Formats: sequence, structure tokens, C-alpha cells
Amino acid sequence: MSIGMNILGLGGHSSAWRYAEVDPMSYIDIDYYRNIGRISERGTLDAIFLADGPALAGNPAGGPAGRLEPTLVLTAIALATERIGVIATASTSYNSPYNLARRIASLDHISGGRAAWNVVTTAGDAAARNFGLTGAPIHDDRYGRAEEFVEIAVKLWDSWEDDAIIADRERGVFADAAKVHSIDHVGTHFSVRGPMNIPRSPQGRPVLVQAGSSEQGKSLGARHADAIFTTQTTLEDGQAFYSEMRARAAAFGRDPDSIKIMPGLSTVIGSTEAEALARQAELDDIQGFESQLSQMAQRLQLDPKDLDVDSELPWHLIGEVGRVENGSHGFFEAQINLARREKLTVRQLSGRIRSGHRLVAGSPEQIADTLEEWFRKGAADGFNIMPDMFPSGAEIFVDHVVPELRRRGVFRTEYTGTTLRDHLGLSRPASQYA
Amino acid sequence: MSIGMNILGLGGHSSAWRYAEVDPMSYIDIDYYRNIGRISERGTLDAIFLADGPALAGNPAGGPAGRLEPTLVLTAIALATERIGVIATASTSYNSPYNLARRIASLDHISGGRAAWNVVTTAGDAAARNFGLTGAPIHDDRYGRAEEFVEIAVKLWDSWEDDAIIADRERGVFADAAKVHSIDHVGTHFSVRGPMNIPRSPQGRPVLVQAGSSEQGKSLGARHADAIFTTQTTLEDGQAFYSEMRARAAAFGRDPDSIKIMPGLSTVIGSTEAEALARQAELDDIQGFESQLSQMAQRLQLDPKDLDVDSELPWHLIGEVGRVENGSHGFFEAQINLARREKLTVRQLSGRIRSGHRLVAGSPEQIADTLEEWFRKGAADGFNIMPDMFPSGAEIFVDHVVPELRRRGVFRTEYTGTTLRDHLGLSRPASQYA
Repeated sequence: MSIGMNILGLGGHSSAWRYAEVDPMSYIDIDYYRNIGRISERGTLDAIFLADGPALAGNPAGGPAGRLEPTLVLTAIALATERIGVIATASTSYNSPYNLARRIASLDHISGGRAAWNVVTTAGDAAARNFGLTGAPIHDDRYGRAEEFVEIAVKLWDSWEDDAIIADRERGVFADAAKVHSIDHVGTHFSVRGPMNIPRSPQGRPVLVQAGSSEQGKSLGARHADAIFTTQTTLEDGQAFYSEMRARAAAFGRDPDSIKIMPGLSTVIGSTEAEALARQAELDDIQGFESQLSQMAQRLQLDPKDLDVDSELPWHLIGEVGRVENGSHGFFEAQINLARREKLTVRQLSGRIRSGHRLVAGSPEQIADTLEEWFRKGAADGFNIMPDMFPSGAEIFVDHVVPELRRRGVFRTEYTGTTLRDHLGLSRPASQYA
Repeated sequence: MSIGMNILGLGGHSSAWRYAEVDPMSYIDIDYYRNIGRISERGTLDAIFLADGPALAGNPAGGPAGRLEPTLVLTAIALATERIGVIATASTSYNSPYNLARRIASLDHISGGRAAWNVVTTAGDAAARNFGLTGAPIHDDRYGRAEEFVEIAVKLWDSWEDDAIIADRERGVFADAAKVHSIDHVGTHFSVRGPMNIPRSPQGRPVLVQAGSSEQGKSLGARHADAIFTTQTTLEDGQAFYSEMRARAAAFGRDPDSIKIMPGLSTVIGSTEAEALARQAELDDIQGFESQLSQMAQRLQLDPKDLDVDSELPWHLIGEVGRVENGSHGFFEAQINLARREKLTVRQLSGRIRSGHRLVAGSPEQIADTLEEWFRKGAADGFNIMPDMFPSGAEIFVDHVVPELRRRGVFRTEYTGTTLRDHLGLSRPASQYA
């Protein structure tokens, strides 16, 4: 299986910053990120993942919201490590294709073929208000723009053929100009001439990751993505999503094995289950239940007052999944799926979800159990792991869960390749211009 | 004096890539940049400078045009060094203020207060064609956009007051929300809500560098810039520009000492003058005179056919300085100023200009002579050095010119501060919201 380490601020638990072991200022300290990169590489994980949004979300009083720009942080991580991949989230709604494609290709060059771009369209007003070009409002159709954006990025990545560079000092010919192509893209949202201003990067195309769960998001992922990050909270839903995405990829003429499905998993790990539950209780205590409730309500786009903690979700208020207009479709769906399938009260549900993802608190064996089960039962090719706090949550995972997975023969004992494509079992695509 | 090292591809000489000692592929090799960063820091230089343009300029057959994205490369350099500053060029015409301000602020955090942004507006069609948003053509008034862009960036850098973060674990209060400000900018080109999604960076505001030489460029620099990069080819013109920019800054109510004037200098250094001239002749030979002629014609916006190599420039074709509409005003002006003042033939002129900047080929003492003269005679606070090729051109400068400057008492023997502002002798500005 593949495993990504999601460095979500100071940890997947929103109160991580208040925990004694955690330095609250480390979220803007590059050594913090490099350290977690090295820990994760010690565990031969596939990649470091960084989420992103170009806005300060939420009240700054509540915790260290916001983050350093991911491509810079991942440059630092890549240069502090040798093999682990680096996955940068970036928005198609608030970037230009040329700049972003170039930044990701630069990261691929700098890391020696370990870069990926996690394509997001960025919901929410906070970001939109930071990009309100006068007279050019953000287009309603975020996914229409995203489709075209990805297409342009791939063209730019392909614009130098692999053997374009000759570097003949004697004759003074650096590149074969016939193998460096303008892309001449003219579309609905963009017109981009190209070519890219750097040669094709080590992976040919940096890995494309996609995480949208709406109909449009799934279509974009099935068509273009090498890996899908997803929020799945029950094995059944995970299996259904896994099959659906492979079928959708096949419908686009792709080999279903060329799309890797990676659900998120929030972890709280102890030497024993009791230790894990104590750690979780301590963190929950620091946060306070009110705050958890408000996070849950926000994901459901409800008022916290509408949630009765000892009853099931107020189903009559929730309505159809399709109603998520300005939030994460995936988080919404995952939360209600779990509550509905297991008939959970609001309080029970809050103990099973963290950062919008399935939460498992347990011993290393228990964590390995659930990863192995989902992997063997066709619900996942891999996982995006969100430890409760850093660095200890990453250390426990690497030092105790990874060895258990290796013993069971479901995870590598060493890196066998050098690129992120190698780790994920993806081939290196030829240039469309070759 | 202050000294920046300008890593212009593989060297300031356009045929550097064909020189035996140079690996033509190193322009996309991050170790190449880190090595030059370390060499420059050994010489206690103020900063590494990277030019940029978001397009492949020129024919890829001619040499390694194009470059890795500067903020990523400078992240790598900053983390391979301890003290030297890192200056990233980025365009106001082809970025969004929120994204760019954030990336530069991130670089300032990552480098511990060593980041600068060189503000450019990016002339030329090649870049424009990579950013032709359908229905949203690039605004004619590049400098109007630039002025507003810089104003927004500064507001965003100021949006967290220095003491906004409390990080009170016990009470669960991370920041004093009253000290984190929306900027609520609504202008002609942009509307940006803010605040920045990271706290104020170590320098308060990253250093602002500006290099435009047109009337609008000089006005932007005089109003906002901490340092001015400029192309000056004769001492007299250097002195005039120096006085003019200080007067312009004063007219905006600024202390003239708060704006540092740094002309570019292309260097070819040998142990003796003869050795330097031999090195230059060898490089010129590799390039061929036709190619030099064509570069010169391009900067003059003329056809090479109009240049008679053994005569002066065809003055009747050149006309007024103001005619540079789609090229570098500074390069144009510097070239004709030198030719006019010294009545040079085209051939002579080509030996005195490299990469659009004044070229000096000589011994370490001769290089130190001209730097000292310009510095002592009121033409420069510092210099942006463009060695002919890397790494040897940087090594010779650091190991032979720097000691000479130190002996003469015009350059530091060790870093006395930790930030780029410290090196340049600039104070740390308070937040405008404090």
C-alpha cells in the first residue's frame, strides 16, 4: 500500500497546539517540517502532503490557522530528504496555469522527480475575497476552470520533449527547437501560448492528485488524476467509492490500476488501546466539546444549536447531499454516511471523525488492522495519514505502525525507486508532443 | 558597500554554457545554486539575486533560456546558508498580490528574515501570451497596476501586528484577533480583503527592490523601494542617477539614506588584467561577434543590419529615449549613454557591455578600483555583480576581490546582523496598523 503523511498544521486534532509537547509557533518554523519529512522517510512513506487555502480561515484567536506557502515548504522538505515524495495543494481558482505548472515542475526538478500537485478548486468566501479582481469576478464554474487548468498544465509539462536538449557546446546548439513546442491553448477560461520555460521534469509529468467528491470533482479526478485523496468513513462506502472511481477512470479509457485511491485516516496511537484513548480524551478535554460540536455543525452547514448531542443528526434539516454549495462536499457526505450507517448520536459521531476524516484511536496493531482491512478488501490503494499531533503522532506511526504493516507484507521495507511515480507504481508518461 | 551576487543562468556571458568548465545542465540543478549561495556567503555578500520572467525568451537552440521558479530556488539557497539575503524577482503583471505577498513572506519566515522581492512589471509579448485570460487582457498601464500591487503587498505584510500572537495554551487563545487586520483594499486593479494567512515575518516587511528606469519605474522605486537595481555605464550617469533617486525619495518624504542604489556590474576577472582579457576573448570567441551584435541591436530595438561595427551607433535611427515601448528602458539608455559619452564604435561598445550592464574585465585590484570609485564618488551604495560564468566567476570575486575591498575598508569582514535589512543598513518598519 501507499502511505502519505499529511502535515495538517500542528496535528489533525485542532487543539494540538495547546498540548504540552507541541510548540505552537512551529507551524511557521521550517525545521518543524523538515523534521517530520525525515521521520516519514525513515518509515519509507510515499509522500508528505500539504493542504492549502489562500486565506486566513477562521478566527486567529482559535489556533494557528493559515500556513506557509506549500511549494516553498516542500522544497525545504525535499532537500532535507532523499526519496520521499512531496505533494503540494494549490488552487485552480486562484492561480494562473503558467505560474503554477512552472512551480510544480520546478519542484519536480529540485526534488529529482518527487513532486505532485493536489488539484483543488477552493470553496469558500474567505479566499474569493482575497482575489476579487475588479471587473473579473471568480467564475461560477470552478470545475470548468479546473478542467481546463489541468489540461494546460499537462500540455506545458509536455512542451519540451524528453530528448529536446542536445547541449552541443561545439556547435553551439543547446536544444532542438523542433522538440520544444508552443502549446497554443485557446479555451474558455484561458489562452496560453507556451512553451514552459524549463525542460521536461524528471517524472515527465509531476503526479496529479485530486480530492473533490462532487460529481464534477469525481469526473475531473477520474479523467486526469494519478491519485485520489478521499474522505471515506465506513468500509462499505470506501469500497463503493473505490469501485466507482476505477470504473469512472476506465470509462475515460484509462487502466483502472493507474488511479490510486487514498482515503484519509486520522490517528491517535498509543502503546495500547487504553493509552490511545487516554491521549484522545486528554486532547478532547483541552478542546472542549462545544468546539468539536461547532466544527461538526460547520461541516454539515448547520447551526450548532440544531444539534442535540445525545440524539442522531437532525436528518430533516440535512436534506440532500447535493446541497453543499460552499463547503466540502466530501466532508459533508462522509460525516452523514457514518452517522446514518451506524446510527450514531452526535456525541458518538464526534468521537469517530477528526479533521473531517475517519478517526481511529488504538494500538499500533489496531491501526495496522484497519489499514490492512481496507487495503485487502478493495477500499484503498493507500492512505493519507493525519496524526493527532506532530511530531509524536508521526513518530509513533513510523516506529510502531509501519513495522507492523511490514510484518504483514502490505508495506515496503525499503524504497525500490527514486521518484514518487515509482513509489505509487505509476508509469512515466510520454510527452503528448513526442 | 553592499554586494549582491546575480546568478544569471550559467553566467552573465551568454556563451558561458559552452565554456568547458561549465555543465550546461546545471541551470536546472539545485546544487548548482546552493553551491553559489555558499560561495557568496563565504564572501559575506549581502544577497543572492535571481532575475525572472514567466516565459521562454528567445530560441531554445541558442542556450539555456528560462529558469526554475526563483522563490523555490531561493528557499533552497536560504536553507543551505545562514546569513546571506535572497532576492526573488517576480512580476506584478502576472501574479496576484495575495499569492505573491504570501510567497515572499513565507520565504522571509523560512530564511529567518533574509527575503526580498524585486518588483518588475515584465515587458515583452512572450510573457503576455502565457497569461492571456480570455476577456481579461493585461492592462496597458503596467505601472499603475504595479503601484497598487506593491501597496497591497505591504498592507498584507503589515496585517498581523508584531505582537498579535499570544499563544496562551491555558486559556486557548492563540492570537489577539484585534491585532490581526483585514486590509479591505478596494482599488482600480484589485480588491483584496486580507488578512495575510501567516503572521508578520521576521523583517516586518521583506525588503523591496525595484529596477525600472522609466519615469514611472523611477517613481515607483523612489516611493516604495528599499533598494534600486540599475544599469549605469559611466560614472557621471551613475552619479546623476544616484542623486536623482535620493532626491525623488526625499520628495516622497523619505530619508534618502533609506534607499540603496545598486548598479549592476558584469565582471571578467583574472589574476592579471592580461589573464582577464584572455578569458574574455575566449568567451567572446565562443559566442561569435554576430551574436553579440544581435544582442546589442535587440536592446536598441534596431535591426543588426543597421549597425556598422566600425562606426558609432546610427544616432539618426535611435531617436529619443522615450521610444522604448516593449523592452528595457534601462538597458537602452545605459547603452546609448556609454556610446555617446565615450564616442565608441559599435565594436568597442560591445566590449564594454555584457547582459545589458557595464562590463569590467581586469585583475581583482582593478575590479575593486571601480567598485571603490563608484562607491566613494556618490554613484552607488552597492553593486549587483554578474560574473561571466559560474561558479568560477563567483569564486574569483569572493576569494580575490572581496579581500581587496576589505583591505580598503569599504566592505564588511563579517556579518554583523542576521537579516537582509541588517546587511543593507535598513531599519525594520512598524506595521501601519499598529
